[in-house]
Amino acid sequence: MTQPLRLGIAGLGTVGTGVVKIVRQKANLLAARTGRPIEITAVSARNRDKDRGVSLKGYAWEDDPVKLAMRDDVDVFVELMGGADGPAKAATEAALAAGKDVVTANKAMLAIHGQELAESAEELGRVIRFEAAVAGGIPVVKALTEGLAGNEITRVMGVMNGTCNYILTRMEDSGLPYDQIFDEAHQLGYLEADPNLDVGGIDAGHKLSLLASIAYGTQVDFGNVELEGIQKISIQDIRTAAAMGFRIKLLGVAQMTGRGLEQRMSPCLVPADSPLGQLQGGTNMVVLEGDSVGQIVLRGAGAGEGPTASAVMSDVIEIARGTRLTTFGQPAAGLEKARPARAAAPAPYYLRMMLTDKPGAMAKVATVLGDAGISINRMRQTHHDDTAAPVVFVTHKTGRDALDRALAGFAGTGVVQGEAVAIRIEDV
Amino acid sequence: MTQPLRLGIAGLGTVGTGVVKIVRQKANLLAARTGRPIEITAVSARNRDKDRGVSLKGYAWEDDPVKLAMRDDVDVFVELMGGADGPAKAATEAALAAGKDVVTANKAMLAIHGQELAESAEELGRVIRFEAAVAGGIPVVKALTEGLAGNEITRVMGVMNGTCNYILTRMEDSGLPYDQIFDEAHQLGYLEADPNLDVGGIDAGHKLSLLASIAYGTQVDFGNVELEGIQKISIQDIRTAAAMGFRIKLLGVAQMTGRGLEQRMSPCLVPADSPLGQLQGGTNMVVLEGDSVGQIVLRGAGAGEGPTASAVMSDVIEIARGTRLTTFGQPAAGLEKARPARAAAPAPYYLRMMLTDKPGAMAKVATVLGDAGISINRMRQTHHDDTAAPVVFVTHKTGRDALDRALAGFAGTGVVQGEAVAIRIEDV
Repeated sequence: MTQPLRLGIAGLGTVGTGVVKIVRQKANLLAARTGRPIEITAVSARNRDKDRGVSLKGYAWEDDPVKLAMRDDVDVFVELMGGADGPAKAATEAALAAGKDVVTANKAMLAIHGQELAESAEELGRVIRFEAAVAGGIPVVKALTEGLAGNEITRVMGVMNGTCNYILTRMEDSGLPYDQIFDEAHQLGYLEADPNLDVGGIDAGHKLSLLASIAYGTQVDFGNVELEGIQKISIQDIRTAAAMGFRIKLLGVAQMTGRGLEQRMSPCLVPADSPLGQLQGGTNMVVLEGDSVGQIVLRGAGAGEGPTASAVMSDVIEIARGTRLTTFGQPAAGLEKARPARAAAPAPYYLRMMLTDKPGAMAKVATVLGDAGISINRMRQTHHDDTAAPVVFVTHKTGRDALDRALAGFAGTGVVQGEAVAIRIEDV
Repeated sequence: MTQPLRLGIAGLGTVGTGVVKIVRQKANLLAARTGRPIEITAVSARNRDKDRGVSLKGYAWEDDPVKLAMRDDVDVFVELMGGADGPAKAATEAALAAGKDVVTANKAMLAIHGQELAESAEELGRVIRFEAAVAGGIPVVKALTEGLAGNEITRVMGVMNGTCNYILTRMEDSGLPYDQIFDEAHQLGYLEADPNLDVGGIDAGHKLSLLASIAYGTQVDFGNVELEGIQKISIQDIRTAAAMGFRIKLLGVAQMTGRGLEQRMSPCLVPADSPLGQLQGGTNMVVLEGDSVGQIVLRGAGAGEGPTASAVMSDVIEIARGTRLTTFGQPAAGLEKARPARAAAPAPYYLRMMLTDKPGAMAKVATVLGDAGISINRMRQTHHDDTAAPVVFVTHKTGRDALDRALAGFAGTGVVQGEAVAIRIEDV
């Protein structure tokens, strides 16, 4: 174990630069903790001449990440380019075929191709580790794969997109509408090039699908994550929720139910005094529930140079120490295909609608709810003009099917203006 | 790796029984996650005939845990007896000498003898794992040893004794004094046979010393943990702190300073709206701070059958998967002796005293503070009788030495009745 572990790093953006800094600045610490030197032998990025604020001296340069991945002087291919397909996937496959282990922060690639890549790695006797792909610096892949491995996992929850949490928190704090805070986040550089990856819940959905695979021993199934973004959340919903003791979070939930695996990434109301409800700004939180351990809450920075590089390094260190784990916590060839279940678990819902102000309007709406089998826990009429009143219901627990029947039924009443807003209340 | 991993379990109290249940009830899950069966071959406890609510059929019985530890049909010795010395240590040593790996929940043994046992294990090529010894079900040993291994750790904090947190929370909620809530906790069975292990901070101090060793690459040094229990915390302090936006927690803090390693386990004021301040009841929380990752917060059940057994099983699973880690995150033979530093980091303090109600009293106390170089941030006089007034100061940051000078100086003023109470305010 005194041979150096040699890294080839593809992608020198924020995270890649952070990894280079740690390897350069903490050589002694890393050697003490792993029993061997950790070195970078080669790097690759789109632009060789960019000033990254860190020296690349002594590292070979490859324009082509595939060539980097296959170099004889690379033991671990560190993939920090991103993108589900293209160079990232080609280079990852090349690295595995050339006998390299792979460390990646690429949630999109693993959410789409994780099963195939994991099978390939395990056939070839290589490992793929991806701590940095989920919730930045929080060591949640390790906690779930190893720390809670003695548990049947009963539920995984997470606020795993810091940009969305920032937007929702800023809306509440400032009272400004979504569009305006979205623009602010854009100007601050918080949004992906395709903002829908953030605000549409796709990025966080990728992460959820990876955790669900580990938790339930099933093949990654991003295609069956129910995705709903935060674009329709109004300042009025945030305020009404707050007045009732809730906050709105883009919350991922994965749970195995009698009807199959439920995976959703959608805005939810959570109690304002719960750990998830108290999570403000760009911080991430993952909640893991196991039959023996109960509830474990993990909180930390979900993005940024230092935190994400810290997660990449934990995988590198794991490999340097000789630990060899399967990608998703058990052999990929044995992972079952999950039976997808759409929002199987019943829950209370928050329902907001504009009700025409005339006698009998409330009775019509209440009848629709009653006919759908939904009973009402709380109701409030927040304010009022001459023609319409905003009305909010909190229902008792109901299945999603019943809720959809009620939402469809409102249209026929002639007294609900526009579409009713329905947001699940998660019992956290 | 298809050979079963065979466990010998010494100690069948709450945790041992929990481990037996998991091994019996989740055989398929454990085999899927480790690639091999996990079996119990032999057990040992003080009382063979006790009904533990779980079958021990098929397990050999040993009255002597040392004999159990040396059995040919045991691969991993699972030590769940407790006690720093005596049978636990003898059996652990016997297990290592006989070529067994060791999984233990014994914080006292490792806090006192960890360095010696780790050196012995590593010389013999065996591993000692102890996830269950710190913060019950929270996978904090793993998070620190592995998840954050790319970081210089800047601070470790933790509320790691659920009984103390229960007592402090109940005092605040009920308004009842310490003695009464202590009796309540005793009746509920929350206290150790020697309650001072809990309320004196010893148990939590053991845990802190283990985390400090991993964090700073130093030999476990429980003897230099500054210990202060919760026995002197009055309901008045809890209420005054609450009125100023704080809660009082038995908080462990370990940090490496320019003057050496500071380890303390003592009551601290923390902001009521911080994650630590919001921790109510018997739950545990550990906060890990690293130079790259920032702040990671871990929260979960710190005790109980399921959570602690979950932690034991994570170590067993780690060994079953072939992962071989050093006890404290780097080779024990290379761990340095820590240079102990008593409360090196300056902090603001909460100071409460009964001041004789006569002209010039406040001036005398303020002069003592000023002479010690301590400046005052906030002051309040809470209520009042004819002869004395309780006065509370919040100081600006000050060193412990200056504070001790001030505390000594109050006696000479003739206006401070009894002893002043000083509680550190930790910046969390």
